[in-house]
Amino acid sequence: MDYKILDQNDFDFFASFIEDTRMFVGEDINQDYSHDELGGIEHMPDIVVKVTSAEEVSKIAKYCNENKIAMVARGTGSGLVGAAVPVFGGVVLDMTLMNEILELDRENLTVTVQPGVLLMELAEFADDNGYLYPPDPGEKTATIAGNISTNAGGMRAVKYGVTRDFVSALEVVLPNGEILHLGGKVVKNSSGYDLKDLIIGSEGTLAIITEATLRLVPKPEISISLLLPFKSIESGIEAVPAIVSSGANITAIEFMQKDCILYAEEYLGKKFPDHSSESYLILTFDGQSKTEVEKEYSKIADLCIELGALDAYIVDTEERKEDVWNARGAFLEAIKASTDLMDECDVVVPRSRVAEFINFTHDVEDKVGIRIPSFGHAGDGNLHIYVCRDGKDDGEWEDKLTKAFDMFYGKAREMGGFPSGEHGIGYIKRKYLLDKISPTEVRIMREIKRAFDPNLILNPDKVIPVND
Amino acid sequence: MDYKILDQNDFDFFASFIEDTRMFVGEDINQDYSHDELGGIEHMPDIVVKVTSAEEVSKIAKYCNENKIAMVARGTGSGLVGAAVPVFGGVVLDMTLMNEILELDRENLTVTVQPGVLLMELAEFADDNGYLYPPDPGEKTATIAGNISTNAGGMRAVKYGVTRDFVSALEVVLPNGEILHLGGKVVKNSSGYDLKDLIIGSEGTLAIITEATLRLVPKPEISISLLLPFKSIESGIEAVPAIVSSGANITAIEFMQKDCILYAEEYLGKKFPDHSSESYLILTFDGQSKTEVEKEYSKIADLCIELGALDAYIVDTEERKEDVWNARGAFLEAIKASTDLMDECDVVVPRSRVAEFINFTHDVEDKVGIRIPSFGHAGDGNLHIYVCRDGKDDGEWEDKLTKAFDMFYGKAREMGGFPSGEHGIGYIKRKYLLDKISPTEVRIMREIKRAFDPNLILNPDKVIPVND
Repeated sequence: MDYKILDQNDFDFFASFIEDTRMFVGEDINQDYSHDELGGIEHMPDIVVKVTSAEEVSKIAKYCNENKIAMVARGTGSGLVGAAVPVFGGVVLDMTLMNEILELDRENLTVTVQPGVLLMELAEFADDNGYLYPPDPGEKTATIAGNISTNAGGMRAVKYGVTRDFVSALEVVLPNGEILHLGGKVVKNSSGYDLKDLIIGSEGTLAIITEATLRLVPKPEISISLLLPFKSIESGIEAVPAIVSSGANITAIEFMQKDCILYAEEYLGKKFPDHSSESYLILTFDGQSKTEVEKEYSKIADLCIELGALDAYIVDTEERKEDVWNARGAFLEAIKASTDLMDECDVVVPRSRVAEFINFTHDVEDKVGIRIPSFGHAGDGNLHIYVCRDGKDDGEWEDKLTKAFDMFYGKAREMGGFPSGEHGIGYIKRKYLLDKISPTEVRIMREIKRAFDPNLILNPDKVIPVND
Repeated sequence: MDYKILDQNDFDFFASFIEDTRMFVGEDINQDYSHDELGGIEHMPDIVVKVTSAEEVSKIAKYCNENKIAMVARGTGSGLVGAAVPVFGGVVLDMTLMNEILELDRENLTVTVQPGVLLMELAEFADDNGYLYPPDPGEKTATIAGNISTNAGGMRAVKYGVTRDFVSALEVVLPNGEILHLGGKVVKNSSGYDLKDLIIGSEGTLAIITEATLRLVPKPEISISLLLPFKSIESGIEAVPAIVSSGANITAIEFMQKDCILYAEEYLGKKFPDHSSESYLILTFDGQSKTEVEKEYSKIADLCIELGALDAYIVDTEERKEDVWNARGAFLEAIKASTDLMDECDVVVPRSRVAEFINFTHDVEDKVGIRIPSFGHAGDGNLHIYVCRDGKDDGEWEDKLTKAFDMFYGKAREMGGFPSGEHGIGYIKRKYLLDKISPTEVRIMREIKRAFDPNLILNPDKVIPVND
């Protein structure tokens, strides 16, 4: 594909309505805009514009569309698959100044936000007002539009579902500059094809999100976690299907191996409540009454003891919650700090197969001869598996990484799983998406892309490559 | 559009692999196949085939696609907007023989069914096995594929959401005969554009559903309803926003006026527990413990008394539940029996506006001079409003119906609502969808239609008219 490289005329156009302080060109562009959190692909944009309104986005989009300039929207750059990297240069729209919470609607249980609001800001706002915004991805500094663009899931998906389930309406800008309003403050809708759900998870390739109305739920009065140590990796992860099929009302089921906890302790300089066992489950329960929540977690604690848990620590004080969840939240950063370079596999498999998959990662570790720590949302089958370079030279690293990834994604396909549970396909994982879906699905997705973006200027070549 | 009228060659093709007993031509076709439950549009097909497998559907689709023959999939014909009516003749695929429940997967909390399984069969199966399939549309004899095709909502949407939220995977046949598998037994997914959610609610215009994997939840141990009489229509419906914003954990909030109850008593030959008041709310609460549920409903009963409820009857015995819910379930049929012809408006508005909308229906009744009973899922803003002909002549009926509908849909648009909450657009409501969405959305939807169905053979001209 051929995109225009920006010249002085283009910069003059931007300067005609964007102040200097919100526009960066050439040497003035911070290197961070060339990559995301994992950095597997890098490319500098020609210009970065910090936009402040849908109208600005619209004006820029229209200009780029008419001049065939590539355009990528970017939040805080916390992605892991290169979705926000401007691989064809062009314009990066930095959405982070559009970070206002616009409205809390108590009668419709919705909150309307600008795209650059951070997940942690939204979570806090909801909490302060007596609500819960249920999606709870680990990366709290991601923007909400980033979460929507990847259909982020997070820890509470077991009970509440994923971001998709909480997006009630979107304002989006099309590449031709048109502003569309999709969905509304309605609980039901059966009025034509569901364009809103197409935008969700489309990683900025169909339209640019400039506003979102999200569903809230009444805040559970009680939230208690159980920390369950197991003497082996297998016994921990193999308890999960039994827990799920017990029918208990569980909010989150997280699995972690000892090594991840040790990395996190090292990284945080703080001890986890217990690190003497080979693997751990953290289960969270929430509800409106203590009796109800206690009834649920006692039942599951007993079940887990039967299934080989060595103990069942109740995590109910603020201090202990912080110890446990800070460690859990630091896994990605801690693993990253443990090596010179890593790449990640975010497969999702049916939750009944998650134990089998975790065991498989250990086989791969042995067979390929590379360190592969992992942790995961065991209760929903979504695993985060990190292949660590540990100083290997380029050739060996490429070779081993490819081998390991091919094995992981192949195994996930075999199990009826998908290449990404919540981090998206972006640029880096396109091969694995193409391996998973049929050529007809690829063709339909390409035609959908062209229906929204006929000149292919919007985050080009991401998710589905334009050509085979 | 021009479709082939079937001739003997075509019938011979069908007869080459479909037994006589599953194939109906000409005079042998039951008149029922020419219309749906409301009958606002009628057209006979050239042939009805009762299919038994995805492979048969595929073979027929391929043939129709190559010969430009229109093709419509039909369940039990309980739709209200003409979606299943073969307006261009051609083939009706009767899906009702594909009615097996194929698998209950306790580890993944899913059930896999054929498209012709009835909602009531699925509900019973889930219940018998200790689960709940949450979507609960009033029409229990609808097929599950019909529910998916309209993204049916039902009464429990307040707490659980709609059909879309419970569809985990679909097997669909494209017009070219290809069989696609969309989604899977996964809780999270961020792997390319969401084709599954495009099929949901597309009313059989993009692909034919031949299998569905649905999510289940653990069955709530307790389910209790409150019946709340109010002395006026206004005081009943106006209590709803306060109930929603109270933050209580409510499963269903249904609103009904006295007249609907009287029609239902007449129709069922059975008394409702109380019919002395002008309007009623029925609220349902479910949960795992009696204490928890009691706590919730007592709080709301007190709130409703403050808001003007005359009493709060607890509906907890099987007999009383039956009285109340049978009456509620019979409203549509009872209103139908009260007149010679009616048409329905299934608007959805933000739930904060539902009282205003109900009050508006009374204004329309007065202004237009026609009887308009209504009832609705007040808790989710989805209203079912019936304009009754009551013996008026053709001219007057058309005139008054159009006036009333234009007022209803116009008001809904003004409120940020949509023309259909759960019954779909089909053939009858296309005008109101076109009034609601932008020309760009129409263009995108048309391009999506062509991406799936380039020859426009699948349920042609439904949802989005092919031409302006």
